[in-house]
Amino acid sequence: MATRSKRGALKRLALNRVYRCLEPGPVILVSTFRDGKANVMTASSHVVLLPDPPRVGLGLGPWNHSYEALLSSGECVIAVPGADLAEKVMDIGNCSGADVDKFQRFRLTALPAGLVAPPLIGQCLYNLECRVCDDRLVEEHFFFLFDVVRAWVNPARKERRTLHHNGDGTFTLSGRTINLKERMVRWPEFTFE
Amino acid sequence: MATRSKRGALKRLALNRVYRCLEPGPVILVSTFRDGKANVMTASSHVVLLPDPPRVGLGLGPWNHSYEALLSSGECVIAVPGADLAEKVMDIGNCSGADVDKFQRFRLTALPAGLVAPPLIGQCLYNLECRVCDDRLVEEHFFFLFDVVRAWVNPARKERRTLHHNGDGTFTLSGRTINLKERMVRWPEFTFE
Repeated sequence: MATRSKRGALKRLALNRVYRCLEPGPVILVSTFRDGKANVMTASSHVVLLPDPPRVGLGLGPWNHSYEALLSSGECVIAVPGADLAEKVMDIGNCSGADVDKFQRFRLTALPAGLVAPPLIGQCLYNLECRVCDDRLVEEHFFFLFDVVRAWVNPARKERRTLHHNGDGTFTLSGRTINLKERMVRWPEFTFE
Repeated sequence: MATRSKRGALKRLALNRVYRCLEPGPVILVSTFRDGKANVMTASSHVVLLPDPPRVGLGLGPWNHSYEALLSSGECVIAVPGADLAEKVMDIGNCSGADVDKFQRFRLTALPAGLVAPPLIGQCLYNLECRVCDDRLVEEHFFFLFDVVRAWVNPARKERRTLHHNGDGTFTLSGRTINLKERMVRWPEFTFE
């Protein structure tokens, strides 16, 4: 039970489920680690490239303090916050790790990841441990490709709605869900339970 | 008024607004053109890399019939459907342009784009004309980078909610919007009106 106590309510999530956390386009928090210090930023610039094993792309540039940490370590954690964290998510994105310890200021619970140095964020719905697998587009386009190597879900969070940034400081919360599974006939990899 | 009649209700959208159409993570339709024939597919594998001028990434591989058209022409139109098109969007994603004329089968209104060969889709909320600007990741990761060179909005569509795929044949509709603009202090480029 050491694993459970170390990470509170977090449980391992199968890697072939990772796709479902990011595909709807939620705002994410990205945690990094450098020189003994963790940092976190807000982003929406991610994409799922392959579902299983999960490969993810993320746009992140020198205008982000996290850029140097990501460049030098090649690791990050992508965490998906619920809508209850909206103000925190916004404020995290509007100050810099160069000035403040954001984990401390925003009372984020840093939990140990299994395979990477950056911490998991205890308050988030999902935490995805990522390692850079291709950096060819970083210099010109500030775009990183990652393999997701381990994933966590926090079933204890009551608020499961995610935040979707409209690009102007407003966020749309995920609303009602419609089920069209019976029409999904060509892509069995996306319809397993 | 030739432009207006040719494209029905569609109006030009400023390129620095394109970011806002894709950032919340909506399901998209991608139209292509090859050998005199238009085709369309459903996707969610896109990301906004730069807001202005807009640069967009899209994952699309040889498992998609549209792949060859995109490879050979270097052009596509990314269109954002409203939630009223949910069943159509799903069915478009579950048949192949190798077998059917999807514009005809799904009664999509193909309208002439301004700068690229693939058609705009009259029923969609937004249409973004795209040209490949970097294909370095195509061979290994099936990921294209585009410049959005012209954009259109259809203000006549009543249903403005977008669809967000949960990766399993269910879609979450965009719900209520919260306004946190006053906390957006570091990123003036995302807060202009």
